[in-house]
Amino acid sequence: MTTDPAALTAALIRCPSVTPADAGALDVIAEPLAAAGFELTWVDRGGIRNLLARWGDKAHPRTFGFNGHTDVVPIGDEADWTHAPFGAEVEGGTMYGRGACDMKSGVAAFVAAAIDFVTDTPPDGAILIAITGDEEGDATDGTVALLDHMEQAGEAMSVCLVGEPTCPSEMGEMLKIGRRGSMSAWFTVTGTQGHSAYPHRANNPLPAMVRLMDRLASHELDTGTDHFDPSTLAVVTIDTGNPANNVIPAQCTSCVNIRFNDAHSGADLSDWLRTEAVEVATAFGVAINVQIKISGESFITQPGPFSDLIVAAVQAETNRTPELSTSGGTSDARFIQAHCPVIECGLVGQSMHKVDEHVEVAHIHQLKGIYTRALRDWFA
Amino acid sequence: MTTDPAALTAALIRCPSVTPADAGALDVIAEPLAAAGFELTWVDRGGIRNLLARWGDKAHPRTFGFNGHTDVVPIGDEADWTHAPFGAEVEGGTMYGRGACDMKSGVAAFVAAAIDFVTDTPPDGAILIAITGDEEGDATDGTVALLDHMEQAGEAMSVCLVGEPTCPSEMGEMLKIGRRGSMSAWFTVTGTQGHSAYPHRANNPLPAMVRLMDRLASHELDTGTDHFDPSTLAVVTIDTGNPANNVIPAQCTSCVNIRFNDAHSGADLSDWLRTEAVEVATAFGVAINVQIKISGESFITQPGPFSDLIVAAVQAETNRTPELSTSGGTSDARFIQAHCPVIECGLVGQSMHKVDEHVEVAHIHQLKGIYTRALRDWFA
Repeated sequence: MTTDPAALTAALIRCPSVTPADAGALDVIAEPLAAAGFELTWVDRGGIRNLLARWGDKAHPRTFGFNGHTDVVPIGDEADWTHAPFGAEVEGGTMYGRGACDMKSGVAAFVAAAIDFVTDTPPDGAILIAITGDEEGDATDGTVALLDHMEQAGEAMSVCLVGEPTCPSEMGEMLKIGRRGSMSAWFTVTGTQGHSAYPHRANNPLPAMVRLMDRLASHELDTGTDHFDPSTLAVVTIDTGNPANNVIPAQCTSCVNIRFNDAHSGADLSDWLRTEAVEVATAFGVAINVQIKISGESFITQPGPFSDLIVAAVQAETNRTPELSTSGGTSDARFIQAHCPVIECGLVGQSMHKVDEHVEVAHIHQLKGIYTRALRDWFA
Repeated sequence: MTTDPAALTAALIRCPSVTPADAGALDVIAEPLAAAGFELTWVDRGGIRNLLARWGDKAHPRTFGFNGHTDVVPIGDEADWTHAPFGAEVEGGTMYGRGACDMKSGVAAFVAAAIDFVTDTPPDGAILIAITGDEEGDATDGTVALLDHMEQAGEAMSVCLVGEPTCPSEMGEMLKIGRRGSMSAWFTVTGTQGHSAYPHRANNPLPAMVRLMDRLASHELDTGTDHFDPSTLAVVTIDTGNPANNVIPAQCTSCVNIRFNDAHSGADLSDWLRTEAVEVATAFGVAINVQIKISGESFITQPGPFSDLIVAAVQAETNRTPELSTSGGTSDARFIQAHCPVIECGLVGQSMHKVDEHVEVAHIHQLKGIYTRALRDWFA
């Protein structure tokens, strides 16, 4: 059987599933999966449609998982596009449209690979395909809802491949075996307002703010770990909103964003930020309020049999040896890593979230080939 | 002759001369001055009325000057006032109204003193009264216009008393023999926007901004001079306006305000600010634009015969020995200091610019007494 992953990608792109809308996208893949014998479970939560498609025995100890999303980011100004954003037009071997690389093509590739694999060579094991319509938005009722449902239903994946685009510029050059953690902290420094001519009668919050931000920005968190780049801290905004240069303001706010590797935890970094704030607040005699949100801890699937298997599949299909990377932002892999080894393996991501998002049609077929080899070798 | 300075103050308060409006205020004093033999010259510029009133020979080498303003700041919300802001109501010996202490009472006191003095004991010399309607606003077409006119007309003051309120809480406790300079600098740090997850691909302007502001704010400009408090620098605002914590911004702005004594000049401080900016810009690889506005240089009328004479007049009328201070913001004395020795001597300024601005009626008479003694002793 030869399910065409490019046709499936085109059908998905034609559904304007701008997050959190589904716009029929999940039905596009539900139908052929059901026809191939997959058992479908709809896991809707918070107004989001999510699909769990299983082939094989729920209790089987060997279950290969795939994860992806069919929602896409907004198109921006349609006038900037040279091809219809939901048209899936193909020109010179390139398919255009929102979601072309992030990640309707990835979903189409593993759905096509799984359908053909179970049809042609039914394995001794199970395949679980978990697809959400809430990855580009809050991501609170998407893959998390699917994992919650699986836990309650006693279902589990032994390993999981996420179909996100992972290659900077060439097919096969990169896998993601982990991700850095991400957290943000908001600081509010409060002093006492006054006249610029009499600073001793006021208590300016700004000197404390710039000292604190300078200490945070110039601190080296680490120099990188075995599989991670150095952690980074970015001061992303400082705001006062004082239009009068003869007035010392009462308050100032700021925000920093930290991307951290496995040398840290969100809790440790929170302690560090609060300690720095207390020291500066004490030194300057001001009040500093700190609010922290940890979006995700860092995680890694240690290199081993699973990554070796995916690397071999990529090598066979692309003649490239992929780098095992932990770079980039966050993805739903951060939720899955608590349940089983997870690796992200997908297309070239250069045009993701951009105008004229596109994918090479040949790459979609290549990716299906990689996923097919992974299934075959893992069940062998 | 006994011109009543309190009645004159009340008549001035009843003119709602909120800067730059005159509302008849200058006519209130022009009339009695003309009646006493003062020669009036209207020096209007930029839509502002200014009055130069001279008694005596224009070419006389001994000319005593008075300077003041009849414009006032806005009243704010009238509902917050317990007395009509332009009513000049007197209750328990206190007169209420906008301008009651800043500085219609001061103008009334020196106009009344000068009229009575030239009427009762015509001096061998001249008296020049320079009153503007543009002190509380931009101050570009007020006392500056009067001084420009005097220079062109070949008129000069030998010394000048400014009638601004100078006492923090008790009559007679303070004169101003100088003022600190004031300047502001606006900094714009420009880097390159980017994603918080990839700070090495961006160039965040904020670390440079906080380092620069920390260097400026923690630098001790001086420890004070013979007649001046230490110079101060206040960082009054830092703004970015970046709402997205996953975005590194391209630009950030800030403003600092410096109040400086006679250990500095605006030019020296400008050089220092620009040098600091260049050093930080070089260290961080960003661009830093600096815009500077010098509102006024510091100045001092060195203690000597003129200040001794005013101190003696204050002592005689109030039984207090006034401190010779250089504290506070700016006043029109900053323009006059380039032409002749200038001292500010006036009322208690506690309620200036506030709701229910007021003045003790007895203090107005006391101030007239001080000015009268100053005239008598100076011409003696």
